[in-house]
Order: sequence, then C-alpha cells, then structure tokens
Amino acid sequence: MKALGMTSTDGPEAVALEEMPVPEPGPGEVRVKLAAASINHRELFITRGMYPGMKLPATLGCDGAGTVDALGEGVSDATLGAEVVLYPGRNWGPDRDAPAADFGLLGMPFSGTIADYIVVPAENLAPKPAHMTFEEAGAMPLTGLTAWRALMFKGKLKAGDTLLISGVGGGVATFGLAFAVALGANVYVTAESQDVIDRAVSMGAKGGLLYTDPEWRRQVGKLTGGIDVVLDGAPSPSFANYVRAIKPGARIVIYGSTAGNEITFNATDIFLKSASIVGTQVGDPQDFRDMLAFVDAHKIKPVIERSFPLAQAKEALLHLQDKHSFGKIVVTM
Amino acid sequence: MKALGMTSTDGPEAVALEEMPVPEPGPGEVRVKLAAASINHRELFITRGMYPGMKLPATLGCDGAGTVDALGEGVSDATLGAEVVLYPGRNWGPDRDAPAADFGLLGMPFSGTIADYIVVPAENLAPKPAHMTFEEAGAMPLTGLTAWRALMFKGKLKAGDTLLISGVGGGVATFGLAFAVALGANVYVTAESQDVIDRAVSMGAKGGLLYTDPEWRRQVGKLTGGIDVVLDGAPSPSFANYVRAIKPGARIVIYGSTAGNEITFNATDIFLKSASIVGTQVGDPQDFRDMLAFVDAHKIKPVIERSFPLAQAKEALLHLQDKHSFGKIVVTM
Repeated sequence: MKALGMTSTDGPEAVALEEMPVPEPGPGEVRVKLAAASINHRELFITRGMYPGMKLPATLGCDGAGTVDALGEGVSDATLGAEVVLYPGRNWGPDRDAPAADFGLLGMPFSGTIADYIVVPAENLAPKPAHMTFEEAGAMPLTGLTAWRALMFKGKLKAGDTLLISGVGGGVATFGLAFAVALGANVYVTAESQDVIDRAVSMGAKGGLLYTDPEWRRQVGKLTGGIDVVLDGAPSPSFANYVRAIKPGARIVIYGSTAGNEITFNATDIFLKSASIVGTQVGDPQDFRDMLAFVDAHKIKPVIERSFPLAQAKEALLHLQDKHSFGKIVVTM
Repeated sequence: MKALGMTSTDGPEAVALEEMPVPEPGPGEVRVKLAAASINHRELFITRGMYPGMKLPATLGCDGAGTVDALGEGVSDATLGAEVVLYPGRNWGPDRDAPAADFGLLGMPFSGTIADYIVVPAENLAPKPAHMTFEEAGAMPLTGLTAWRALMFKGKLKAGDTLLISGVGGGVATFGLAFAVALGANVYVTAESQDVIDRAVSMGAKGGLLYTDPEWRRQVGKLTGGIDVVLDGAPSPSFANYVRAIKPGARIVIYGSTAGNEITFNATDIFLKSASIVGTQVGDPQDFRDMLAFVDAHKIKPVIERSFPLAQAKEALLHLQDKHSFGKIVVTM
C-alpha cells in the first residue's frame, strides 16, 4: 500500500509517499480501507520535529474515514464493509477532564491515516454520518472534535450566548463557527481579511472585526455587547484585546498557541468577573460521540477548501503551509 | 445603637464608632441583634475608597452572627431568638456561575455587621452551627464562603487531590486549608515565614515552602509531586513559580490580586495540560448552605487570631492592617 511516510525532521518538503506492507489487525483491532483523510497543522509541526514526543519513522495523518476491511481476533462490534469515521486518538483514559499520560494521536506516535489502510483498536470506529461523503467525514475528526470539546465541554456554550472566535479560517475555528451557529449562539469573529469575515457571516456569524486593525480592541465590546465564550488558538496578542469585553462568568478557551506563548493578563479582569481561562486539547471518545450526534441532528458538513488525491499528499501538506485560507484540506484514496 | 461608620475615604484611622438609630425591618426583612462580626481586608480597601462601587456613608462589616430580634411583615421562616449566621451578600441572582450586576455585600453597599443590630432580608439567615461560638460563627462568612466556592465549586477539589495554597495565613487561605484537609486532599502551602508553615502543618498541611526563597520554583514540583488545584489570592509573581508544577487538568483558582495585577503565563503550559485559570469571588447562597453543612459534618472551627470588643472595632481594623499573621480578627458585641 501507499502511505505518507516521514523519516527525518527536515520539514514538509522531505516527506514522501512510500510503499509499505498492508498492516494486519491484532486482537481487538480492525483494519480500515481508507477513503479520505485530511491535513492538519500538526502534520506540519511534526515534519519539522516541533511536536511533543517525536518518534520516527512515522506515517502521517490523524483524520480518516473509510470501510472496515478486516477484523482481528475477538472483535464482535464491527462489521466488514461498514462505513466508518475514526476517533483520532488512543488511550485517553478514564478522566474526562484531561487525557492520561500515554494518550496519543494517530499519525505519530500511532500509525497514520494518509495511507491506503490503517489498523486501529475497534473502539476507534464510529459510523460515518449518513449525510456526509467520505471526504467530508474524513475532514472532521481532529479539528471538529477539538472545536466541539472547546465550546461544549470546556466552554459550556449555550444557545443565546455570545461567542467570539478569535482568528477564524482554520479547521477548529470553522467547525466552531458551524457548531455554535447550529446551537443558537451569537457568533462574532476576528479575521485577517474582509473576505474571511464575509465567508464567516455567510455561515451564520453576526459580524466580525479585522485583527489587523489596531482599533479592534475598542470595537469588540460594542460590536458583541459583551462576550460569554472566546475560542482562541493563538491567544497572544489577541488576549489583551478582548479580555475587557468579557461578561461575568465568561470562559476563554485556548486550544493552541500558534502566535507565541507569552500571555499577560490582568488578574482583576478575571477574578472580579468570575471568568475562566480554560486550556483544551482534542477531546475524549464521549466528546467524539456527542459531536457526531450533534452533527447528524443538525446535518452539519465541514467546509472543504480543496481536495488532493493520495498521490499528491505532499502537495496537500504544502498547500496548508503556503496557501490555506478557509476550511479543510482533504486527501482522497 | 453603636456602629462602625465611615464618612470619608481617609483610611482606617478615620473610621469611628457612631451612635445610630436601631433599624426597623421592612417587609420580608428581619432584624438581628449581632453578637460577633469579623474584620476583612475589604474593609481596609473600603476605608481608602479603593473598592468598586463606593457609596458613602457606610457602616462596615460583612460577617455577622447573632440572634433574630424582630421580624418584618410577611416573614414566616424565621423565629425570634434563633441563633443565626448571615449570608454576607445580597442579590446574587439566578446564575450559579457568576453574580448578577446588582450583587453586593453587607458593609457597603448594604448596611454592615460591625454594629449592635442589622436588618437583612430573611433569606440571608442560616442557623449558627451548633458546635461554634458566636465569635467563631461570625468569623466565617466572607472568607469561609470564598474559600469554599474557590475550592469546591470552582476548583472541583476531590479527596486525594494535591492542593497548593499560595500564601497561607489570611482568612480565605486558612479556611481553604481546613476545608481541604477535612476533605482528604494533600495540602501544601507557601508562606512568608517558617512559623506560618509550621502552623499550617499543625492544621494538617503536608508541607510548605517559603515564598521569600527564590528557589521555591524549583522545589515545588518535587515537594508536591504535581499539583491538581492551586488557591491563590495574590497570583503575581507566584504564578510563574508554580505553573510548571501543575498536573494535567489542573485548576488554578484566583480569588484576589493583592500582589499586583499583571500575570504573564505561557499558553502552552495551560492548553497542553488541559488546565484552567479560574476567577472566583465570594459565593452564592447554595455555596453558603453547602459550606455550613460541611463545616457541621466535620466540626470545623475557624482559626481566630484575636478578638476585640465593639468599642475597639477601629483597633481591630488597624490590627489587621499592621499586625495580622494567621487567622481571623473578630469583633464582639
């Protein structure tokens, strides 16, 4: 089979489609013939060796959808030929609030989805939502799950709440927008261009501000009327711009730090408003099930920017690095 | 009656015991003949005009215990002569997560407890815990409630968790220590002197570090084995010293900012650990009931540093300002 392999940390230019043996499922495992995967920023970090717990060689990709192709010993709850989407992690453990120490994702440290086949534990399987194509289902797991947990489990977003998505356009932010609109929240965004704001508004956002405008700090309170939940993957320097506009009891949910690590905040803004700054990563299997049920009920589909065949998986990676603007990059087998 | 009144913002030296008319309860209100009150740092801030929503003249004091002395029209759930302790706030509102905009405390903006009598809404009454003296009950409301909510409602502290109390000695921290030990948590403290650490250990803390020692940052992880919950009322510069020692899913609960407002943190430390920084203030009536039930079940008593008669209430205030070290300052009527 073909798989997007990685043997050095020389960046996305150094990855290559490799010929590998088709893997055999062990006890409790299943083999899935993949139909679609997607590209995430974590693959770019991994190719540069900038990810915790680096382990080489690796096959990349943690999002996947396909059909059940072979069952290992003792697997009773999976059916050959079933159309499935894969929970992107392994070994979350028993604590819903945080993953166990040996938690990891498909596509480093565990084998990845940008390949013709993958073997995973049977509990990683979930039914592909019936209203989605394989491409759509394969675009969803990591970023959809991260957005779901950030907003619903950690951010406790409710219908009627006001949500600020700080920096819309990426996968997590775009899923967050779709989920929050479907829930009935009032969603505002910041973005780097008016085009992206318009795109967000067409998906249901109430309005947006350009984060390139140094005045946005002054406008955000007036535009939103006060913020209940913030979703932010790059909280510096945005943090200081919205913290004054949060309402009592607000939840600022942080799922990344791609704009630098240091955040400075005023303790008084947080404690006098009974507000919280909440860190989140990925989500547990229950979050995944909850998200799939919600997606199914609301017939939500991911925004796909572009799709590449497996033979061009490396180009897909470079597209995310250099040309991405809004929505997910998909790889199809 | 006598009451500790305040007509200027010239500091604690300018307050005076004044003669005032005994207040009459209106519909739904009760008059309480106070037996004991306590002094909190908020009174010092108020006397200097450094408190949000300043309103003069004011009678000081938000902690009180005494006996029901007169019932207003329509009050059916209070009994004359009943021994009570007062919920220290008014108008929390329906949201357990944060108070409503018109929430306030007794002793500015509402009338205070350092007085012979107070009139409050009947719903502010709770039975005085039978194992406590009036002095002990009157020492508890504000700081006990703040500690309870911070640890239990916001911090979700569980038996077996490791708690760091950053800067023990004050009222909230001391109640936090007592509650956490009774719950079965492993409690560590930082303090300004070995005497205070020894005092905390005698109350059940497992150990402590001097925050005056610049090396405490290096020692806190080893001493505690990793922290589940932090209780901090002065999170700068302590914050950077313990944030690296938190465990996945940790809750850093901030109830004040007495050491300055600016906190700088590393976003990666928070989101890669699914940790939270949680602001908290006071507590709602349900927290107050929960605290009283816990205090009763575990026969917890406040630590009282010193008691002053009402005639020396101003000296009590100055004692907190100048000489306080560990536990509560009480005023008795």
